[in-house]
Amino acid sequence: MAHKRLLIPGPTDVLPEVLLQQTKPMIGHRGDDYTKLYTGIIDKLQKYFNTKRNITVLTASGTIWMDITGRNMVKKKALACVNGAFSERMYLTIKDCGKDVDALVVDWGKAIKPEMVLERLKGGNYDTLAICQNETSTGVRSPVNEICQAVKKEYPDIMIVVDTVSSAGGDLIEPDVMNADIVFTSTQKCFALPPGLSIGIVSDAALERAKQVPGRGHYTDLIAIFDYYAKKQQNPTTPNVSLMYALDYQLNRMLAETAQKRYERHLAMAEMTRKWATDHGIEIFPEKGYESVTVTTLKNNLNKNIGDLNKALGKRGFQISNGYGALKDKTFRIGHMGDWTPDEIRSLLLNIEDIWGL
Amino acid sequence: MAHKRLLIPGPTDVLPEVLLQQTKPMIGHRGDDYTKLYTGIIDKLQKYFNTKRNITVLTASGTIWMDITGRNMVKKKALACVNGAFSERMYLTIKDCGKDVDALVVDWGKAIKPEMVLERLKGGNYDTLAICQNETSTGVRSPVNEICQAVKKEYPDIMIVVDTVSSAGGDLIEPDVMNADIVFTSTQKCFALPPGLSIGIVSDAALERAKQVPGRGHYTDLIAIFDYYAKKQQNPTTPNVSLMYALDYQLNRMLAETAQKRYERHLAMAEMTRKWATDHGIEIFPEKGYESVTVTTLKNNLNKNIGDLNKALGKRGFQISNGYGALKDKTFRIGHMGDWTPDEIRSLLLNIEDIWGL
Repeated sequence: MAHKRLLIPGPTDVLPEVLLQQTKPMIGHRGDDYTKLYTGIIDKLQKYFNTKRNITVLTASGTIWMDITGRNMVKKKALACVNGAFSERMYLTIKDCGKDVDALVVDWGKAIKPEMVLERLKGGNYDTLAICQNETSTGVRSPVNEICQAVKKEYPDIMIVVDTVSSAGGDLIEPDVMNADIVFTSTQKCFALPPGLSIGIVSDAALERAKQVPGRGHYTDLIAIFDYYAKKQQNPTTPNVSLMYALDYQLNRMLAETAQKRYERHLAMAEMTRKWATDHGIEIFPEKGYESVTVTTLKNNLNKNIGDLNKALGKRGFQISNGYGALKDKTFRIGHMGDWTPDEIRSLLLNIEDIWGL
Repeated sequence: MAHKRLLIPGPTDVLPEVLLQQTKPMIGHRGDDYTKLYTGIIDKLQKYFNTKRNITVLTASGTIWMDITGRNMVKKKALACVNGAFSERMYLTIKDCGKDVDALVVDWGKAIKPEMVLERLKGGNYDTLAICQNETSTGVRSPVNEICQAVKKEYPDIMIVVDTVSSAGGDLIEPDVMNADIVFTSTQKCFALPPGLSIGIVSDAALERAKQVPGRGHYTDLIAIFDYYAKKQQNPTTPNVSLMYALDYQLNRMLAETAQKRYERHLAMAEMTRKWATDHGIEIFPEKGYESVTVTTLKNNLNKNIGDLNKALGKRGFQISNGYGALKDKTFRIGHMGDWTPDEIRSLLLNIEDIWGL
């Protein structure tokens, strides 16, 4: 069977030339060749995100950063903002790390906003705040620059952790403007790479905090990770060398396109999808003004069978997503991230129109 | 520059046909195609290791299993057997997880033996025991079948964790004979795959224990991992799909060769290396009778410059390893693992002979 174009909210398709990077012969991860590869990657990530902050690439999915948050940031108590399945996973993970955590819960489809967070932080004695910038489950984009700036102004000692798993590399993520302490993402979304690596952008303050939190373990210990990098410019544990080659190559492509142009391309795909939906009477699920630019969640207000749609699309070589969890049949999601272009999204939308007879 | 054959104790070379598996187009990890791929892998691993025990493949290096040990097994106190750098890492990781742990320390180069362990367990109130079957840093192979059987007989409630990172897939690892509770390994050693995945073979008793240990986190939570597998036959977090394709393909090759024949091939390479060393007056570092079959550590009793040897070998297309840590110049290590054959090891040894004028 022919390959289906993955227009789901990750993983996304990976270009053949990028996949091919993974066929380079293996090298040892304790030698100079690897040091050159890895330090080059860190430099390119700093350039792409326009920051001089500490960056590491871990051989693990993005979720490990939720464990890292629980193990390294939370001394007494965290506040986790929950507006979907992945922000809820952060809340649960911090709890499962044995740490005290409260949830600021808003309805799925709504964004987290600065005033909500400030209100909730009052007198709460929190030392850590977690926010998901782009909720993959709902297609909601929260204004993290504004939230982080507002919180840092009033509570400079609160460590802020921002999940940009399904947005960094597509949406415009600015760690220095945000001034968050940990910003993390994964390779299989807007970076358009296979899954298997996650990236963390980490402030000096976060490392200071980590030093004060015992029980960080080894694989999840930010101090072990950055100490080893400072000493040897390598990873403390064995990295996925094949995928590092692919990341290095893809970063060259991303830098050539520029972060700004990638953002504009993702925005164009999102706006095209939203306009198409509105033109055909399909309602947009997220709160107006807070729509993701990497995944568009639409209401199933035409009462179609989304499973049937995906079957029909599958025959034509496309795959989209149903809603997440409780929203499974009430919404559907179109991922437009990574290396996709507006022309390719148009092709998908024309096919949905045709299948549904819109 | 031409590629150097990696005759180091991992990573090892990966066959081009195996690397090519990583260029398959991406698929979603929540769909039927992935379920089929992943359940197939688990079946093949159970076949290869001749066990019906629970198996999982994690997107992380083998070290994560040290965190998993600390987070899931240790209720009150662990005993970690330390006879090299990687068994020491287990000890330190359990400690860094905030758990109480003692070390049974023997000199580097010596094996852990059943009587030592039984003696030390007496009255120690330990609930967890960790042993490294094949110490990559020293080339020592400890008799884990005998140790585990002896311990399980006297202390059935102690959870035993066995590190087979640099041996499983080459040396004969028999989880059912051993009757350990967690046996873990990585893909970049005897499996001859790129790094990025680790495999854990887990007893039902280990899962019962994990349920009693709070603070397991999410990425390192055995219950989350196996509950998700029971419910959906997938991974709770995003797996490295590209590397799963390569693992699936390589398992077909491993099953075709058989675990027994792979062991015999590795043993033949080890015996050839040891005989060659002895014939040329080079002493074998590990205690007699406890030599690894996947990595041979030799004493530098001829007082050669190992760095110079590796440079000269590099020009001829080979790479071996110096000693580990404090043994850097006192020993050198030849890795003969994965898909290497005795003929290829002979070629390396002839070149060392020639360079050193032996």
